[in-house]
Amino acid sequence: MSSQPDIATIVQRVRDEVASRIGEGRVADYIPALAHVPIDRFGIAVRTSCGQSAHAGDAEEPFSIQSISKVFTLTLALQARGEALWRRVGKEPSGDPFNSLLQLEHECGVPRNPLINAGALVVADCLVSDYEKPLDALLSKVRSLAGKRIAFDTAVAHSELATADRNASMAHLMKSFGNLENSVDAVLDAYCHQCSLSMNCCELAAALGYLADCGSHSPVASAESTQGTGATPRATQIVDAARARRINALMLTCGTYDRAGEFAYEVGLPAKSGVGGGIVAVIPGRGTVAVWSPGLGESGNSVVGVEALKRFVALTGWSVF
Amino acid sequence: MSSQPDIATIVQRVRDEVASRIGEGRVADYIPALAHVPIDRFGIAVRTSCGQSAHAGDAEEPFSIQSISKVFTLTLALQARGEALWRRVGKEPSGDPFNSLLQLEHECGVPRNPLINAGALVVADCLVSDYEKPLDALLSKVRSLAGKRIAFDTAVAHSELATADRNASMAHLMKSFGNLENSVDAVLDAYCHQCSLSMNCCELAAALGYLADCGSHSPVASAESTQGTGATPRATQIVDAARARRINALMLTCGTYDRAGEFAYEVGLPAKSGVGGGIVAVIPGRGTVAVWSPGLGESGNSVVGVEALKRFVALTGWSVF
Amino acid sequence: MSSQPDIATIVQRVRDEVASRIGEGRVADYIPALAHVPIDRFGIAVRTSCGQSAHAGDAEEPFSIQSISKVFTLTLALQARGEALWRRVGKEPSGDPFNSLLQLEHECGVPRNPLINAGALVVADCLVSDYEKPLDALLSKVRSLAGKRIAFDTAVAHSELATADRNASMAHLMKSFGNLENSVDAVLDAYCHQCSLSMNCCELAAALGYLADCGSHSPVASAESTQGTGATPRATQIVDAARARRINALMLTCGTYDRAGEFAYEVGLPAKSGVGGGIVAVIPGRGTVAVWSPGLGESGNSVVGVEALKRFVALTGWSVF
Amino acid sequence: MSSQPDIATIVQRVRDEVASRIGEGRVADYIPALAHVPIDRFGIAVRTSCGQSAHAGDAEEPFSIQSISKVFTLTLALQARGEALWRRVGKEPSGDPFNSLLQLEHECGVPRNPLINAGALVVADCLVSDYEKPLDALLSKVRSLAGKRIAFDTAVAHSELATADRNASMAHLMKSFGNLENSVDAVLDAYCHQCSLSMNCCELAAALGYLADCGSHSPVASAESTQGTGATPRATQIVDAARARRINALMLTCGTYDRAGEFAYEVGLPAKSGVGGGIVAVIPGRGTVAVWSPGLGESGNSVVGVEALKRFVALTGWSVF
Repeated sequence: MSSQPDIATIVQRVRDEVASRIGEGRVADYIPALAHVPIDRFGIAVRTSCGQSAHAGDAEEPFSIQSISKVFTLTLALQARGEALWRRVGKEPSGDPFNSLLQLEHECGVPRNPLINAGALVVADCLVSDYEKPLDALLSKVRSLAGKRIAFDTAVAHSELATADRNASMAHLMKSFGNLENSVDAVLDAYCHQCSLSMNCCELAAALGYLADCGSHSPVASAESTQGTGATPRATQIVDAARARRINALMLTCGTYDRAGEFAYEVGLPAKSGVGGGIVAVIPGRGTVAVWSPGLGESGNSVVGVEALKRFVALTGWSVF
Repeated sequence: MSSQPDIATIVQRVRDEVASRIGEGRVADYIPALAHVPIDRFGIAVRTSCGQSAHAGDAEEPFSIQSISKVFTLTLALQARGEALWRRVGKEPSGDPFNSLLQLEHECGVPRNPLINAGALVVADCLVSDYEKPLDALLSKVRSLAGKRIAFDTAVAHSELATADRNASMAHLMKSFGNLENSVDAVLDAYCHQCSLSMNCCELAAALGYLADCGSHSPVASAESTQGTGATPRATQIVDAARARRINALMLTCGTYDRAGEFAYEVGLPAKSGVGGGIVAVIPGRGTVAVWSPGLGESGNSVVGVEALKRFVALTGWSVF
Repeated sequence: MSSQPDIATIVQRVRDEVASRIGEGRVADYIPALAHVPIDRFGIAVRTSCGQSAHAGDAEEPFSIQSISKVFTLTLALQARGEALWRRVGKEPSGDPFNSLLQLEHECGVPRNPLINAGALVVADCLVSDYEKPLDALLSKVRSLAGKRIAFDTAVAHSELATADRNASMAHLMKSFGNLENSVDAVLDAYCHQCSLSMNCCELAAALGYLADCGSHSPVASAESTQGTGATPRATQIVDAARARRINALMLTCGTYDRAGEFAYEVGLPAKSGVGGGIVAVIPGRGTVAVWSPGLGESGNSVVGVEALKRFVALTGWSVF
Repeated sequence: MSSQPDIATIVQRVRDEVASRIGEGRVADYIPALAHVPIDRFGIAVRTSCGQSAHAGDAEEPFSIQSISKVFTLTLALQARGEALWRRVGKEPSGDPFNSLLQLEHECGVPRNPLINAGALVVADCLVSDYEKPLDALLSKVRSLAGKRIAFDTAVAHSELATADRNASMAHLMKSFGNLENSVDAVLDAYCHQCSLSMNCCELAAALGYLADCGSHSPVASAESTQGTGATPRATQIVDAARARRINALMLTCGTYDRAGEFAYEVGLPAKSGVGGGIVAVIPGRGTVAVWSPGLGESGNSVVGVEALKRFVALTGWSVF
C-alpha cells in the first residue's frame, strides 16, 4: 500500500474517471421531496487521520443523508444503553431488502441489525426514551462533529412522514411484539427527521472521522480549509476504540443494504449508504471518504458513488483486507 | 496496536484463558464419523507474515476441516474460471442457516455465496468440470501449501456421503434450475471428500498464509519449527493481491455461517469455520491464526474457538477495523 | 343421509357428548376485554331451511363474534363492488397464520382471501369508501338478518383498537402498496367495531341462513320459538344463488384460519370461526348451525366448538362431501 | 337444481361451448415425453351414481394422468395405514406452488397435504413399504376400477425419472428429516411410474365413482355403453363412506394446486388435476366428471378443462355449495 498518497490528486482523478457515468441510476422517488434532486451531481471528500483533507465535484453541496444517519443514532444509542442495546436488535446481515418484514415476523420483532430500517426504528425508539429531546441531541452531536451549518430539512422530513407506511408497518409489527417502548408516531417522527439531515460530503467525511481514529474525533482547523495543515486540534473521544471497531464491523457487514457482500468484495471498506445518494466509507487508521451522486442502483446504493469508491480504493490501495 | 507482540507468549496466554471453558458446546453428531471426536481438545497456531510461528495445546492433532475446505476450493475455482464464477454463485451473506433451501428456491438455484453449502456445491461442480482429477488437484494444492502429511479421511468422507441427504436435496434443486454441470452424485462425492480433509492447526495457519500476504505463499522453513527463523524461503503467488483481498471479504461477510455479523463485531477478522470445530482467521498483512476445539455452538462455530479468537484479538490488537 | 333428523334431540345430544370437554383450550387474551369471558360456556343453535330451529346450552348468551363478522362485511362489499372486489383481494387459502405479513409482502399487498385479517381490512376499506356510514350499514344489515337486539360492544372495540398493532402493521403495509383507499385509522376503526359485534348462537344461525338457502333469507317467526312452525314468512334475497355458493366455497377453503383443511376433512362444512369462540357452519340446502365455547386451540378455533360440529355432522350425516 | 339433467345433451353442449377456446394454455414441457401431446384435444366424460354415462370429444383418447394418480395412491395408503398416515403428511392447503420446498424446510419435512408432490412422495414411500409390489398393487387397483386396458406409459415414466431433480430434491429433504422410509431412488421410481398411468376421460370418470358414491364402486355394464342402462352391477366397497367424504374434502381444498380456492369459488366441486391436462371432479351423491385438454394455465391446471367444468356446473346446477 502506498504509505502517503496525494489525496488531492486522487480525488480529482476519481472524479475524472467517473465523469462519464454521472447520471446513471435512478433518483429515489418514493419520497416526493427527494424526487427532484438533479441526477447529474457528484461529489467526493476525503479526510485523513493525519489531518489532510481534499474534495472534488459537488462536495460542498448539501444533500439528504437519509440512512447514513443510522450511524449517528447508533452511536448515540450505544452511548446511552451500552451493549444492552443488542437485546433489542441483532448484528447480522439481513439477506433481505432493507425494508423487509419477513424476518421481523419470524424473529419476534427483533430486527437483524441497526442499519436496516427496522433496526434503525428500534434505535430511534431508544433515543426517544433516553433523551428528553432526542432530535436536539442528535443535531447537537452531528454539529459538534461536522459544523454548525447542519440542520434537518423539514420539508423532507414531512414528505417522508407522509409516505412512511412501510416504516409504520414495521414499527407496528415490532410494537405488537413488545419491541417498541414509545408510540409508533413518536418513533416515526424521530426517524423521519434523522433521515432528513442535510449534509455535504466534506461534513460527512469529517463527522465519521472518529470511526477511523479509534473513536477519537479531531475537529478540522477551519470549515473552509480544503487542505489540512497537519496541526492537530484538541481531540474528543466519541466512543472507545473497541466500539469504533465494532461500529465499523456492522457497517461492513450491514451498511450497504442487501449488497453488503458485493460491496465488501469490490470496495473492501466499512461504509454506510443512503437513498439520498450519499455513501461514507471508513478506512480504519487512515481516514474517511464521502461520496455523493443521487442516481441509485437496484439495491438502493448510489451507482456512481460505489464506482467512485472502487476507484478510490484502487488508487490508494486502502482496503481493510 | 502493538507493532510486534510476542506470539509465543500470546498463544500460551490464550490457551490459559480459555482452559476453563474447554468442553463447552456440542460435538457435531450429524456425521457419525465425527460424533466420537473428544470434546476436550483445544489447539491454537499462529503464523505471521514476517515468518514467526507459534502454537499451543493440541495444535498438531489433525481434525476434519469440513467447511474450511471451501476456502481452498474457492481459490481453485477462481483460478480456473475467474470472475465468471460469479454468474453461478453470489457474494452476499445468506442471513439463513448454512444448509437452507429457501433462498435457493426463490433465487433460481443460485446460492448466495460460495462459503455456504449450496455455494460450495456449485464450486465443487466447477472443479469436477474443470479438473480431470479434482480431488487430486485439491489435495496437491493443499499439500503444496501446508505439507505432504495431509490426506482425505476416507471414513469421514463415506460417513458424510451416507448422510448427505440435505446436500443432495440442495444439489438436485440447483440441478433442476440448470445450475449444476455434473451429476449430483459426482458433485456430492467431490464435496464430501473435500470436507474430510484432515489437517491440524499449524497446517491450517500455514495453508492460508497467502490470504494474509497479498496472495503470496511462503513455505515454512521446516515442518517441525515452532518458532520461525525470520529467513524468507521462496514465495509462490497463489492468487493476485486483489483476489486475496476479495476472498478475505467473503470470509468476513460469509465465513462463519449465520453468525458472521456477530463474529465480525466481536472478533473483527475474516475467518472460515467448520463443523469439525476448526476456525482459521486472516489478519491481512500480519498473518493467520488457526484454532480448534470440537464443541460447537448453535450456529455451528466452535464455542471455545470463537472465544480464543476474541482473546487473541484483544491481546494483539489485531483487527481489520 | 337421514332426511329429517330431529334437530332438537340432536342439539341436546351434541351438548351432552361435549359436556366433559367444556373448559378445554384457552380464552383469547390478546384483546384485554375478551380475556375475562368465562371458559365454561357452551352453546349450540341450529336453524333448518325448512323452518325448524333448536338450541341447547348457552345459545342465547351473546358473545363477541370477532372474525365471523368477516362474512357479513364480505357480503356487503360484494353487493357494492361485485366481482371487481377480487382485484384487491384473492380467493386462495393462505397456508399461514391469520395475521401473517409474509405473503402480503411478497404479493404486493394483495391479501390471499377476505377471511384472513389482511383481507378483511381490505373489505373494511371498501365499506368505508362505499357506504357513507359503514358501521351503520353493517349493523342495519345484521339486525335485519337476526334481530334488533344486536349491537357493537364498544368496550371490546376500544380494547381491540388499543392493541391493534398487528392489524395496523398489515394495513400500513397494504397502504404502502396502494391497496388501501382510506386512512389506516379509519379502516382500523371500522374493522375493530365489526369484530366487536355481540351476538348469540341463535342469532348467528339465523343470520347466515341465506348462505344455506341460495341467498334467500327467511326471518324466523318469533325470536322465542325453539321449534319452527313450518310457516314460511316473506323471504328476502340477500345475494343471488351463485354468490351464496361462492361465499360458502370461500368459507370452506379459508374460514377456519390455517386449519381449514383439517376442518374440511373432519367436519366437511363451510364455516367461519372467530377468536371469541364462535363458529357458524352452513349446510347448503339444509340449514345453519352455530356453536360457541370460548376456549381456543392453537389455530384460534374453539376447541369444543369444533368437537361439537364433528358430532353434529356425525349425528345428522350432513356434509357437503 | 335440476333433479335429472340429460347428461348426454349436457356434455355435448359443454364441448360446443368451449370449442373456440381449445388450444389455449401451454402443454407441459418440463417432461420431454409430454411436450409433444397435441394441444388441440378436448374430451369430457360423465358418469352418474344412477348408472348413466356420457362423453364427448376425445374422451376415449388416453393421456398421462400425472397428479390425478395421487388420489389412487392416497386411497391405497389410507387402506394400508389408516389415519396413522397423517403423522407423516398434513391436510392443509399449501398456499405455495405444487413443488415448493419452502414449507417442507420450515415444517420438518412434513408436507402440507398428500396431493402436492412432496406429500405424494410420502404416500409413494408408504406404498413401497407396505406393498411387496407397489406398482402392481396400484395398477391392479386402477384396472379393477376402470378396465384392464390401463397401463403405465414406460416412456413417460423414464422421461420423468430423467428430469426428476425437483422431486429428488424434495425427497432428499424429507429423508434428511427422517420422513422417508425407503431410498430416494425407490420412491422416485414408484412416483414417476404412478404419474405415467395412461387413462382416458371415460376411465377416469368410472375410476373415481367410489368417491361420489359413499366409497362404493359400481362397475359399468360395458365399456362401450355411452348411456347407462340403469341396471346396477355388483358394487364393491373401496373405502368407507366417511373416508370417501374426507378424500373429497382434501381434493376440494388441495386438489388443484395453488388455485384450489379459485377453483372452489368458480366450480365448487372436489377435483384433482394433472399436468397432462386432465381433471376429475366429484359430485358427491351424483357422479363424476372427467375432462381433458392439454393446454395448461399458470397454475398447472388445464385451461379449457377448468372452463368446461365451470360450464358443466352452470348447466347442471351441481355444486357442493
